[in-house]
Amino acid sequence: MQVHESTTVATLADLRVDGARLWDSLMQLAQIGATDKGGVCRLALTELDREARDLFIAWAKEIDCSVRIDAIGNIFARRAGLRDDLPPVMTGSHIDTQPTGGKFDGNYGVLAGLEVLRTLADANVRTLAPLEVAVWTNEEGSRFVPVMMGSGVFAGAFTLEHALEQRDREGVSVGDALASIGYAGDSGKPHAVGAYLEAHIEQGPVLEAHDTTIGVVQGALGQRWYDVTVHGMEAHAGPTPMELRRDALLVAADLIHAVNRIALDHAPHGRGTVGWLDVHPNSRNVIPGRVTLTVDLRAADDASLTEMDAALRAACATAGEKTGIQVDVEQVVYFPPQPFAADLVAAVQQGADMLGFSSMGVISGAGHDAVYLARVAPAAMIFVPCKDGISHNEIEDARADHLEAGCNVLLQAMLNAAQTAEGTAA
Amino acid sequence: MQVHESTTVATLADLRVDGARLWDSLMQLAQIGATDKGGVCRLALTELDREARDLFIAWAKEIDCSVRIDAIGNIFARRAGLRDDLPPVMTGSHIDTQPTGGKFDGNYGVLAGLEVLRTLADANVRTLAPLEVAVWTNEEGSRFVPVMMGSGVFAGAFTLEHALEQRDREGVSVGDALASIGYAGDSGKPHAVGAYLEAHIEQGPVLEAHDTTIGVVQGALGQRWYDVTVHGMEAHAGPTPMELRRDALLVAADLIHAVNRIALDHAPHGRGTVGWLDVHPNSRNVIPGRVTLTVDLRAADDASLTEMDAALRAACATAGEKTGIQVDVEQVVYFPPQPFAADLVAAVQQGADMLGFSSMGVISGAGHDAVYLARVAPAAMIFVPCKDGISHNEIEDARADHLEAGCNVLLQAMLNAAQTAEGTAA
Repeated sequence: MQVHESTTVATLADLRVDGARLWDSLMQLAQIGATDKGGVCRLALTELDREARDLFIAWAKEIDCSVRIDAIGNIFARRAGLRDDLPPVMTGSHIDTQPTGGKFDGNYGVLAGLEVLRTLADANVRTLAPLEVAVWTNEEGSRFVPVMMGSGVFAGAFTLEHALEQRDREGVSVGDALASIGYAGDSGKPHAVGAYLEAHIEQGPVLEAHDTTIGVVQGALGQRWYDVTVHGMEAHAGPTPMELRRDALLVAADLIHAVNRIALDHAPHGRGTVGWLDVHPNSRNVIPGRVTLTVDLRAADDASLTEMDAALRAACATAGEKTGIQVDVEQVVYFPPQPFAADLVAAVQQGADMLGFSSMGVISGAGHDAVYLARVAPAAMIFVPCKDGISHNEIEDARADHLEAGCNVLLQAMLNAAQTAEGTAA
Repeated sequence: MQVHESTTVATLADLRVDGARLWDSLMQLAQIGATDKGGVCRLALTELDREARDLFIAWAKEIDCSVRIDAIGNIFARRAGLRDDLPPVMTGSHIDTQPTGGKFDGNYGVLAGLEVLRTLADANVRTLAPLEVAVWTNEEGSRFVPVMMGSGVFAGAFTLEHALEQRDREGVSVGDALASIGYAGDSGKPHAVGAYLEAHIEQGPVLEAHDTTIGVVQGALGQRWYDVTVHGMEAHAGPTPMELRRDALLVAADLIHAVNRIALDHAPHGRGTVGWLDVHPNSRNVIPGRVTLTVDLRAADDASLTEMDAALRAACATAGEKTGIQVDVEQVVYFPPQPFAADLVAAVQQGADMLGFSSMGVISGAGHDAVYLARVAPAAMIFVPCKDGISHNEIEDARADHLEAGCNVLLQAMLNAAQTAEGTAA
């Protein structure tokens, strides 16, 4: 089985990425939109985004990648394979950031992919299947919704037309923004993908809490998001005795507890969060007449998520019964749980084991481009720890040795998948 | 004991106010700043306030009252007594409103007082002590704080200078606003008051719930107001397992329940309200990192209020212990409980009984000008029901027969106090 031509390494298992080069590239990219507090503000399809895209493409061309840009602005940097008709083994992530974002979220996945290609180029290794590094448009959703827009269009989660007509707060459409930065690419259909791997900082505290270097991501939690409205009766805090009140905030407090309990009832993967809450009229000496709040429920399997949905609706139905307070609940988002491909997850685990890194199976609580890619190709992810689990924050930080370790696992898993590609295409 | 000279009524107990005239005056005053929804928007010291003040003074002069305006803009319309050296028996309230206020809050107390004087003028009754109707400046506090500004200055709760330098959101000072509407009056010191009575809509649901016409107000609840801050840790709702969270809103929910329980533990007069709550960063999929909220505790006696204060502080100290969340609590306002004068309360009760109205002892949960006046004179209040207990709202409503009944009780109680005045001055 010939999977590479190499003049510089004895075996592929001995290949190692250049951690310092990866770090330097991360720091160089982080200069574009750098904030005073050490973070990055580089919203999707802005001039800063264009500058970052241009830099990535320049780097990719230095190692003789071909570059394609599609109609939603996704960039695919391709290192040809020995069998270039095979579907590519793809990796990638995004380089747009939150308004007060960090240097690593998304950027790490893109530059880890670039570092894998650089390493192969240096070693003159040519895989059987082609390799691609994707830069997905507008993953963050800070300027345009929906989030994970580029990968969503690529995977058919929603249409290109729908995405192009979305507008930011100033009324600029995605289509116009793409054109203005010169990244409205060809209208070709999404191409087949042999396998998709994505390296990412964990954005949570689990790996750090377990002092573990590699998170072998088994899949992504399903999500149900809700808008809840509690209809009480606004009244003066002074003259209204406790027994005659219809206090919407008191019922909301019951619901906050219920959401927490529902998540704990579905441990270890259940999550329940009330992240947004608004009180009307929000006046110190007025009993709250109306409270609106959001609920975010997540679970690893759909049966659990369905149970959690029923428990939430039951809690809303009974919370206001004593005081005649009505609670309306409306589901606004549903992402099904997304297990990753067993073979590809095994390849990640194997890479971590072979390289001698501590590792543990984890599940992604957040959405990632890989979750959409999993709808059209075998997909998996590699997590590395981030400091204090903090992300979407200018103080987001990660250790260079962890980033290098994740990149080496990505390299091995991609080589592994490229070997598998030979089998399927042979 | 000569307390009146009269040619038209046999005894003072037979005197009755003109309910239709009272209603008409209320409706006429409500035209000044009338809103589309049937309410009134007449903020303190605006041109509309000036117009309403001018109308009141014109009405007072029609019945030969003398009018004095003091340095904070309080208006005193005086009907001379037979012994004009005696301290006046005073009534009154305010004619400024909330931005979306009603026709009755404050206005009723002022026009009920005017109706009492009109009734006495019609009947040619002259009391021993002089009678005064006060219009207190800026009771609502919607444009300028502190609330109950005019009566607060009069009673020495804070200084005239402090009040005059307060500014609205546009930067206009109380002093300048008074001057611009021509109501910066004389700098004479507050005069002695023989007794103070105030009629007011209840602004709560108790009288209506008990189908009772007259609330004989025993006093006002003491109040302690707090600002509370819950310091959690902001984190992603997805990747952060339940057991590693420091959710500030979950702790706030505990506090909302604690405030409710503390009030119920001090039934029937204990009140506990979280009226204002702010979540940071208030994002659907971010665990709340910080919650700020207000607490409003009220009780009829200071011992209860002190116990409630201790219970709140204990709840704040323990709420975040499990998760290492710090809770800061700061008291920002303290009004001591204010019992009203027993003799004057008895006079109100006697008036209601004599007139055959259903009545019950109640306590004022809200602050009123009478609460400050009680610091410098014997004071009491008369409550009448308002529809559904709703106030500070354009749909605030009250029945004409209830307003007339309260006014007749005020008349009798004022006559009673004027008789007492003879005794004290004799």
